Amino acid sequence: MVNYPNGKKHPSKDLVTTGREKRKINYGRRGMVFEEAIDASNQYYLTEHLAVIHKRPTPVQIVKVDYPKRSKAVITEAYFKTPSTTDYNGIYKGKYLDFEAKETQNKTSFPLVNIHAHQVEHMRAVIEQGGICFLLIHFAVLNEVYLLPFVPFYHYWQRMMAGGRKSMTLTEIRNDGILVPNGFRPRLDYLAALSLSDESEEK
Amino acid sequence: MVNYPNGKKHPSKDLVTTGREKRKINYGRRGMVFEEAIDASNQYYLTEHLAVIHKRPTPVQIVKVDYPKRSKAVITEAYFKTPSTTDYNGIYKGKYLDFEAKETQNKTSFPLVNIHAHQVEHMRAVIEQGGICFLLIHFAVLNEVYLLPFVPFYHYWQRMMAGGRKSMTLTEIRNDGILVPNGFRPRLDYLAALSLSDESEEK
Repeated sequence: MVNYPNGKKHPSKDLVTTGREKRKINYGRRGMVFEEAIDASNQYYLTEHLAVIHKRPTPVQIVKVDYPKRSKAVITEAYFKTPSTTDYNGIYKGKYLDFEAKETQNKTSFPLVNIHAHQVEHMRAVIEQGGICFLLIHFAVLNEVYLLPFVPFYHYWQRMMAGGRKSMTLTEIRNDGILVPNGFRPRLDYLAALSLSDESEEK
Repeated sequence: MVNYPNGKKHPSKDLVTTGREKRKINYGRRGMVFEEAIDASNQYYLTEHLAVIHKRPTPVQIVKVDYPKRSKAVITEAYFKTPSTTDYNGIYKGKYLDFEAKETQNKTSFPLVNIHAHQVEHMRAVIEQGGICFLLIHFAVLNEVYLLPFVPFYHYWQRMMAGGRKSMTLTEIRNDGILVPNGFRPRLDYLAALSLSDESEEK
C-alpha cells in the first residue's frame, strides 16, 4: 500500500492507472472510461484469438464535407443519428454476439429510459436468430458491472410496457445478472461472466 | 417493352426504378446505388425474419460539436477514419456473418488495392472464429454482382503479397464466386448465392 502524505485521495479513485504497481483498475465514473475498458478487453480478446468484437461507430449524418488542398477531407456539418442497433457486436466461439453497454450514476436501480425501443427490437431479432445478447450495466458509484442476459432484461422491459416500474432494481439485476470481474487482462472480463451465465442456464 | 419516342435512353439504365412495370432493378453505376440495393435487401431479410444484417456506420473522428439553443447538436469539425473492419455484419441462421461490398468500373478484373490489409486481417480473424465471410463485388459496367468467399479471395491476396498480380481477373471471380441474383424482393439476394456456395462446399 502506498501512502500519500500530501493528503491527496488515492489516485486510483479518479484515474485509470496502468503500470505494475496497481493491478486493480478503476474503470471509473465516466461513460468514456467504461467504454475504454470494454474496448481494451475487446482488444485483448482479439489478440488472444478468443473473440472478434468491435464497437460500432457512432452513426452520423454527414451533410457537408470540405476538401481543402493538400490536406484531408474535413466534415464541416453533420448530425448525430439515433442508433438502430446496439453498440457492440461480433463473434465468439462461432456464435454471433451482440450487446449494449450502459452506465448509470444511480445506486439502487437502472432506469429503462436508457434503452431505446428499437434497440430492444433489434436484440429480440438477434435472439430469434439464435444469437447471444445481453446488456452490460455499469453502476458507476458502486463501481460494479453486471452482465444481464436479454431474457430477464426483456421481462423487466415488458413489465414497464404493461404499466409497471420504469426501472430494474439493483437487487433484480444482481439476481438475474452476473457480476463482471474487474481485472488487469482483460480489464473487464465479460466473456468470463457470459460463460458463467451459459453454465447456469445449462444446469 | 416500353418505347421512348423522344429518343431518351431506357430510364432503367440510369435510374433505380420501383413499381410494377419493371421488375428488373438496375442497381446502377454508382457505389451508392449498389449500397442501397444491399441495404434494401438487408431490410427485406430483417422483415422476413431471415437474418439480421446491418451496415456499420462510417467511422468518423469527431473534433468539434456545437450545441445551438433550441436545436440539436451540430458536428462542425470531424474527419473520416480508416475502417478497421468490413462494412457489413450480422447474424444468419445462428451464425456470424461478415462481408465487404466493393464496386469497380473495371470490366475484366478487380484491383485488390480496393481492399485494406487490416480488413483482410479482420476477415481472417472472423474465419478463424468460425464465421461466414465473403466479398460482394459489383462490376458496375457489366451490372453483375459476385459473392466471393473469403478462402479463394485470400488465395489471390496472398498471390499479390508474394509478388504476383495486383488484381483478381473476372474469370477467376466467375470461377470461384457465385453470381448474385438481381431481382425485386430482395433486390440483391446474396444469401441465396451464399447458400449455393455452402452447398458446393459440402459436395
